[in-house]
Amino acid sequence: MATVSMKQDPSVLAARLDKAADTAAAANLDALLISPGSDLRYLIGAGGESFERLSCLVLPAAGRSAAPALVVPKLEELGYADVPAEELGIEVVTWVDGQDPHAIVADLLRRSGAPRRLAVADAMPALHTMPLRDVMPDAVQLLAGPVLRQLRMRKDAAEIEALRTAGAAIDRVHARMAEFLTAGRTEAEVGADIAAAIVAEGHTHADFVIVGSGPNGASPHHALSDRVIERGDVVVVDIGGPIPAGYNSDCTRTYSIGAPAQSDVRDTYAVLQAAQRAAVEAVRPGATAESIDAAAREPIAAAGFGEFFVHRTGHGIGLDVHEEPYVVGGNRLPLEPGMAFSIEPGIYQPGRWGARIEDIVVVTDEGVESVNNQPHELVELPA
Amino acid sequence: MATVSMKQDPSVLAARLDKAADTAAAANLDALLISPGSDLRYLIGAGGESFERLSCLVLPAAGRSAAPALVVPKLEELGYADVPAEELGIEVVTWVDGQDPHAIVADLLRRSGAPRRLAVADAMPALHTMPLRDVMPDAVQLLAGPVLRQLRMRKDAAEIEALRTAGAAIDRVHARMAEFLTAGRTEAEVGADIAAAIVAEGHTHADFVIVGSGPNGASPHHALSDRVIERGDVVVVDIGGPIPAGYNSDCTRTYSIGAPAQSDVRDTYAVLQAAQRAAVEAVRPGATAESIDAAAREPIAAAGFGEFFVHRTGHGIGLDVHEEPYVVGGNRLPLEPGMAFSIEPGIYQPGRWGARIEDIVVVTDEGVESVNNQPHELVELPA
Repeated sequence: MATVSMKQDPSVLAARLDKAADTAAAANLDALLISPGSDLRYLIGAGGESFERLSCLVLPAAGRSAAPALVVPKLEELGYADVPAEELGIEVVTWVDGQDPHAIVADLLRRSGAPRRLAVADAMPALHTMPLRDVMPDAVQLLAGPVLRQLRMRKDAAEIEALRTAGAAIDRVHARMAEFLTAGRTEAEVGADIAAAIVAEGHTHADFVIVGSGPNGASPHHALSDRVIERGDVVVVDIGGPIPAGYNSDCTRTYSIGAPAQSDVRDTYAVLQAAQRAAVEAVRPGATAESIDAAAREPIAAAGFGEFFVHRTGHGIGLDVHEEPYVVGGNRLPLEPGMAFSIEPGIYQPGRWGARIEDIVVVTDEGVESVNNQPHELVELPA
Repeated sequence: MATVSMKQDPSVLAARLDKAADTAAAANLDALLISPGSDLRYLIGAGGESFERLSCLVLPAAGRSAAPALVVPKLEELGYADVPAEELGIEVVTWVDGQDPHAIVADLLRRSGAPRRLAVADAMPALHTMPLRDVMPDAVQLLAGPVLRQLRMRKDAAEIEALRTAGAAIDRVHARMAEFLTAGRTEAEVGADIAAAIVAEGHTHADFVIVGSGPNGASPHHALSDRVIERGDVVVVDIGGPIPAGYNSDCTRTYSIGAPAQSDVRDTYAVLQAAQRAAVEAVRPGATAESIDAAAREPIAAAGFGEFFVHRTGHGIGLDVHEEPYVVGGNRLPLEPGMAFSIEPGIYQPGRWGARIEDIVVVTDEGVESVNNQPHELVELPA
């Protein structure tokens, strides 16, 4: 489906393009080549579509003589109708079937001299990076991610407000969970109802719906199955999607169908809840991303469950569900106000049950704000 | 959402892997590196997920000593549970956050000597191709598409049956169009109902819903808008999605809300209908892809509408909505039994109205079979 288009303030986009061009120059790049996806949406207000026909923003680094250009298939030009190209000084260059769009990009780049270092969008498929390499064999290709992440991981006030809106929307779905999640239904049935509620509560679509019941909850990336949910099951529900502005929700709560059948659930869950709270409370400007991971991991390890927390503590979120900064051991990035990410430790008892608690939090000037605010306790639903 | 998994006959997958390894050897490649997507689903029966964590099938070319390996994040291993890895002789290698999956792929490749020519899946993002290049700087990266298309564009009987199933499902949605498409509703409202019907009639989801009414119909890739449909409008409806087996539908019909308001609609539409039929009737083994494009294009040009047919005639279809073979000028590929593609000429009157007729057809031993069989006439719905 085409991206829902939301007109962006041209001055915001202009500032982003300038900052990207400056950051590219500082990285000694000649230009950024940005294909459809979240990077493109961030920079020009339209994400485009990722078909086999090349669309590409050619953004020269600051100091280069050429103007930015947007190369798009004539057929898909209307999808960029909301881009304020003229105000942004972007030349729109269309091409039709039979023309070589990669050669067009090369010609545009050569207007400011033979390119030597080009950064392509992380999401650009090999189908386009390879022909671009072949038409410009003397240019080294690098990833644009290190440039774009400098911009995208520092959210402005409007972006944070969009994350709040998304957070409130997914909170409303969790608040309605008793409508959907009952004994006797399959995970797939429950998931279909949740997906509809995700849309009804203000998302453009359900991007992911995980209903991990009983032993399936012990597999962090399990999605849905035909397993029938039983009384006494512990159920991990991890759900989210984009709102029309493009920003994503992502929130996990763990439910019990009546009282949990297994005797170790309540004590283990208490450890998890304390660990998740400790990690949230550790968030403040200057703390490193890995210190937040450690704040979640240490209490879980101290209680003897370290081997059952098998993933990183969190991921950045914005126009992508997963983006920088990653909350993981080894990431020494100091947190700054405006960074947004998940805090989602889990404890997974293989073959028996699992639990995870996830909030999206934003770093503030003083500390942290959570955009998800449903209760963190194990939620006992009527069986 | 996770790919719906359908268990594949291991002997079919084994034959595909062997053929891919043989074709890779014939192309003087050392190995294929296949990331999540349709290529992976075709080869091992599971498409995986395209997250930032690398999953990659490492398939050595025939004659190399190493066995195939599937590198997957430990966290996502369950998503490959239906892959008959043991029967296929595929070693599953898992990795966890903090490990370098690209180095793992390089180590696996080096078991049969330093790789010199590697082909990566067309869909592999730069996020993974660049680190793979950096850990194996002496290996040239090429596209795997030319290898995979040799296999994927020649459908076997089960694949053709899946395309028939998908075609019948989308035909049922078109047959119900009078329920959805009426004057006074917006394109977006109509589109939402169509999307639900696409699912209700047997697809896993609606992959695209184009409702191009009045002037919007003149823009071939227009999707949906808040335009209110009026009596007398001509409306292009181009819809499709995958069935659980993974194969896609894609079918366009053009509707009129009551009698068309503009006087040139009926005569122009008759030209389009004749052109579409002529192209379908030109399909037979040995005819070139470009000859089918010409068969559609010539009658439209002869009637003076050549400049208003602004795209190629069609695209292959299967696990992807757009794949080889493309029905476009310059493609001299001779058609073979089992090839499947769309035939979808259109005539677009800028700013006024447009029309397109699209069927998915399969090349048979003697000629052609259409998997879409709704009437091709301009369908006049009650206003």
